[in-house]
Amino acid sequence: MPATSALPRWRGVFPAVTTKFHANEELDVAAMERHFEFQIENGVDGLVTCGSLGEASTLTLEEKLEVAAIALRVSNGRVPVLANVSESSTRAALRYVEGAAKLGVQGLMLMPALLYGADAREAMTNVRTVANAAALPTMVYNNPVSYRVDLRPEHFAELADCPWLVAIKESTDNIRRITDLRNTLGTRYQLFIGVDDLSFEGLAIGCDGLLAGLCDAFPAETVAIYKLMQAKRYDEALKIYQWFTPLLHLDVSPKLVQNIKLAEAMVGVGNENVRRPRLPLVGAEREQVATIIQHGINTRPDLSGLF
Amino acid sequence: MPATSALPRWRGVFPAVTTKFHANEELDVAAMERHFEFQIENGVDGLVTCGSLGEASTLTLEEKLEVAAIALRVSNGRVPVLANVSESSTRAALRYVEGAAKLGVQGLMLMPALLYGADAREAMTNVRTVANAAALPTMVYNNPVSYRVDLRPEHFAELADCPWLVAIKESTDNIRRITDLRNTLGTRYQLFIGVDDLSFEGLAIGCDGLLAGLCDAFPAETVAIYKLMQAKRYDEALKIYQWFTPLLHLDVSPKLVQNIKLAEAMVGVGNENVRRPRLPLVGAEREQVATIIQHGINTRPDLSGLF
Amino acid sequence: MPATSALPRWRGVFPAVTTKFHANEELDVAAMERHFEFQIENGVDGLVTCGSLGEASTLTLEEKLEVAAIALRVSNGRVPVLANVSESSTRAALRYVEGAAKLGVQGLMLMPALLYGADAREAMTNVRTVANAAALPTMVYNNPVSYRVDLRPEHFAELADCPWLVAIKESTDNIRRITDLRNTLGTRYQLFIGVDDLSFEGLAIGCDGLLAGLCDAFPAETVAIYKLMQAKRYDEALKIYQWFTPLLHLDVSPKLVQNIKLAEAMVGVGNENVRRPRLPLVGAEREQVATIIQHGINTRPDLSGLF
Amino acid sequence: MPATSALPRWRGVFPAVTTKFHANEELDVAAMERHFEFQIENGVDGLVTCGSLGEASTLTLEEKLEVAAIALRVSNGRVPVLANVSESSTRAALRYVEGAAKLGVQGLMLMPALLYGADAREAMTNVRTVANAAALPTMVYNNPVSYRVDLRPEHFAELADCPWLVAIKESTDNIRRITDLRNTLGTRYQLFIGVDDLSFEGLAIGCDGLLAGLCDAFPAETVAIYKLMQAKRYDEALKIYQWFTPLLHLDVSPKLVQNIKLAEAMVGVGNENVRRPRLPLVGAEREQVATIIQHGINTRPDLSGLF
Repeated sequence: MPATSALPRWRGVFPAVTTKFHANEELDVAAMERHFEFQIENGVDGLVTCGSLGEASTLTLEEKLEVAAIALRVSNGRVPVLANVSESSTRAALRYVEGAAKLGVQGLMLMPALLYGADAREAMTNVRTVANAAALPTMVYNNPVSYRVDLRPEHFAELADCPWLVAIKESTDNIRRITDLRNTLGTRYQLFIGVDDLSFEGLAIGCDGLLAGLCDAFPAETVAIYKLMQAKRYDEALKIYQWFTPLLHLDVSPKLVQNIKLAEAMVGVGNENVRRPRLPLVGAEREQVATIIQHGINTRPDLSGLF
Repeated sequence: MPATSALPRWRGVFPAVTTKFHANEELDVAAMERHFEFQIENGVDGLVTCGSLGEASTLTLEEKLEVAAIALRVSNGRVPVLANVSESSTRAALRYVEGAAKLGVQGLMLMPALLYGADAREAMTNVRTVANAAALPTMVYNNPVSYRVDLRPEHFAELADCPWLVAIKESTDNIRRITDLRNTLGTRYQLFIGVDDLSFEGLAIGCDGLLAGLCDAFPAETVAIYKLMQAKRYDEALKIYQWFTPLLHLDVSPKLVQNIKLAEAMVGVGNENVRRPRLPLVGAEREQVATIIQHGINTRPDLSGLF
Repeated sequence: MPATSALPRWRGVFPAVTTKFHANEELDVAAMERHFEFQIENGVDGLVTCGSLGEASTLTLEEKLEVAAIALRVSNGRVPVLANVSESSTRAALRYVEGAAKLGVQGLMLMPALLYGADAREAMTNVRTVANAAALPTMVYNNPVSYRVDLRPEHFAELADCPWLVAIKESTDNIRRITDLRNTLGTRYQLFIGVDDLSFEGLAIGCDGLLAGLCDAFPAETVAIYKLMQAKRYDEALKIYQWFTPLLHLDVSPKLVQNIKLAEAMVGVGNENVRRPRLPLVGAEREQVATIIQHGINTRPDLSGLF
Repeated sequence: MPATSALPRWRGVFPAVTTKFHANEELDVAAMERHFEFQIENGVDGLVTCGSLGEASTLTLEEKLEVAAIALRVSNGRVPVLANVSESSTRAALRYVEGAAKLGVQGLMLMPALLYGADAREAMTNVRTVANAAALPTMVYNNPVSYRVDLRPEHFAELADCPWLVAIKESTDNIRRITDLRNTLGTRYQLFIGVDDLSFEGLAIGCDGLLAGLCDAFPAETVAIYKLMQAKRYDEALKIYQWFTPLLHLDVSPKLVQNIKLAEAMVGVGNENVRRPRLPLVGAEREQVATIIQHGINTRPDLSGLF
């Protein structure tokens, strides 16, 4: 068991980075290298590989380890790399985290359960089992909206004796949960808000960081909002956030992957290739999203001289 | 048609005041007088009579006018009195606002439709018809969660040519809506957040005021949060809000009336009488709510010297 | 207290009859007389006045009693007339059923609570209070989808000692509930299915009757389905039901009143006038509904010689 | 492309068979052999391996092929064996069906998409791609409740030119969908109802078969209901179904796997072992389920002499 004091207290902006593919659905290693570098250069505080936004559900265990290895190589210690664990069985998760630990990732993002609507007892057992086996600092990803498993403040209180669990990514779509978590748990866990268009609200109400999506295309603006709020410059942060909101809404959609990959393509840092059953946006839907993105680009706030 | 410049720009804390009854379900006029006075003395900026929290659905037209008259008499011009319009037909609403206008209320709170899940065309027609007939400044109350009618930013843009509509009470349970309203409407309408346990978030993101429930029992604390945030003293406001949150959750419940009347009784400014089909809380449910309230009372923040 | 054996065991087809208006929203008495007669001539087994489909929420107590009086006059004892009780307070319901009893209605349809999401204790208290005061046979209308109050089989078991409660109108949208009610309650209550496009399923699974909507425009077909199923001629009933289904879907919509009034107008037994906030259908929406209705009219099954 | 006339028209009772494990989570081959045999002896018309109920999400591709191979070996041509395809990417599904086709399965059950809420275009592309590659008769499994992907009647009309798609397993929880499918599609597809406690209703309204869960523990009763309804002996079928309903409700629960495995254990044809994150039922929850099952066993209808 680690000394808690030895464990990291993650904070700041952690993008859930998209996974890059060639047109034939194979991994595009060079594109990923460029993109991880782009994120770090723009000031993010960590990298999360192969989350939902990273199309985890279409990747093999081997591919996910390869992506984590790329991130580690690019980061080279500049920011922590967290491998997302979203296997649908405990057995598979154990195989995966063994590999991730060998690679030397700095931590995990861990979903309590996928596809199966586990109850709290099952979800907590799964989280403990995987985190203890990995022996790595872990951010638990709570997303009852998408995954029908809800770990509530009282469950995190119960899990508090597992030292590896150092942070919570909260994606309930219920901003009140942040205050409930704080009231129940104090500062036992670092709290990350996992919903892009609740990020200002989350930081205002006391979150320690953002697990961000549109950051993949707009890292400088995401980092600026975070830093302004740390500096209590709320009005300036709100102004950028109001500009950003139509873009951030693109993260709260079944098509978030395609939306964000289109944004990456339009700002010149990625392409639209996805793995099936996902297909790239077409027709009126693509136009509507592209219009929102283009308007965002055209009215981009000037960040120079902010800090 | 009024000059827009002549219309009020409401801001601050407006409690939706509970309606007081004797044990036999008759109106308790003296209790209402005391309570309106209590609110004003504690610094609220307006009074709303006979909202959902005021058990509007159990009151006759005559009773609702009587309650508005009491509020007007007590306020005596100190703060504006808004009569809530929640009739289930346009015909009945027209009868009611005629009476309210004669009484001299300073404004209306107006629900787009009740019981019937009107579409936007119907809801907008209803809102225009009633507001124009009343010729009174009006806060439109948008609550799709309870009433299945949703007026979205684009609808309020369409309604912007009706000068009487001066404010929006936003109760979607979706805090993002505030930014969407601002981005679409600028400052055309004053924005009030109508969900107690989203009030800090709402003010942080730019709301002009609170349409508040627990304020009925805890007006000083509600007003303090509002004033601290106006003064950009966010950390102090957040500390009070964290204390307040377990109480504020009592507003987001089918039993909000009983919860808040119990809170009023426990702080000594009301009683638990309700009109059927509501019944006062009993047994374990009452104990659980009372425990939350008592804990709130016991740990009440010291507001002296704040301003 | 009545002897249970003296109470009616309603069965068959009971339409929730629409309320007819002139263009100026005033009651159209002659149109209602014609329509009640039309229903009875086509074989319905009872009439329900001023339900949700009868725009109850826009009618005054006096108007609702007037409509019940018209139905009683037209029926003249041929079929029972049930006055629907959908007041939003117990006080108002008591005033209303006093009037209805004086008129001599044969029974009530009674909603556990409106607008307020009463819990089971409150809803049961309300139902008992009103039914006992009315001293009339009562069909309890359970519709948690629209009204957020759910009386479950165990609650009806608890209410079984109130002899006036003789029937249940089940509108949960959950057809399984019928079997659960039967398994829990045996034949204590007559069971009516209250969702048009679950009516074949409801009768197949053992309901005693239909509380029907599209019956307002198509009573002969509704009655035919019921009678064929009573005669175990399921294949014939299913064939008519399959024809009827696109029409029956029009009952499961926020616009059910407008849809069904349009159907009445198109088959020549009514008009499209509604009370605000409802507005008649317009544009593409009206065309789409009219197309469904016209197709139903064009392909109407031949019922001659069926019985 | 196959001649449509050469393709099977599946009908009757197809259980989604549970996958058997040892206590250490390894596959229990002998238990599966016994259980497939038990199903066939009791008259089922087909076998589906590794569906949701078969804990597909915890099995590797190789394990799923092994289970299909066991079913094929036991069936030995007596009933068709359908391998369920529930991979979360098209790529993985293609790998899997290649293996299944080599084994010689008689068909597939195919989910339009898992984990990703594909739109209709994406879901249809996925279904076509996989079915055409497999070149096997396929039952499309539509379950928007669990998987957020809905193929509606108009989509199945569009897919009708893909000859391999021969049947639909309908699990919308919306029994009306059956009539909509029939009205739109006629007899192009065989229709299976996939929700246990809507099975009587589904057969009454014209389904061709059941994709059944509790059948794993009670195959004789499931088959009896189907056969009685085919023989138009509805009253007898309903009586068995009413007995069966409390058990069938156990299929509509996040814990359906544990519930049905407990039922199997209690009737002596299985054990309670599951793969994590699932855990066996414990405590009050287990007792409650066991009580329902035991009551079902104690009051089991006598089927002797029925046919």
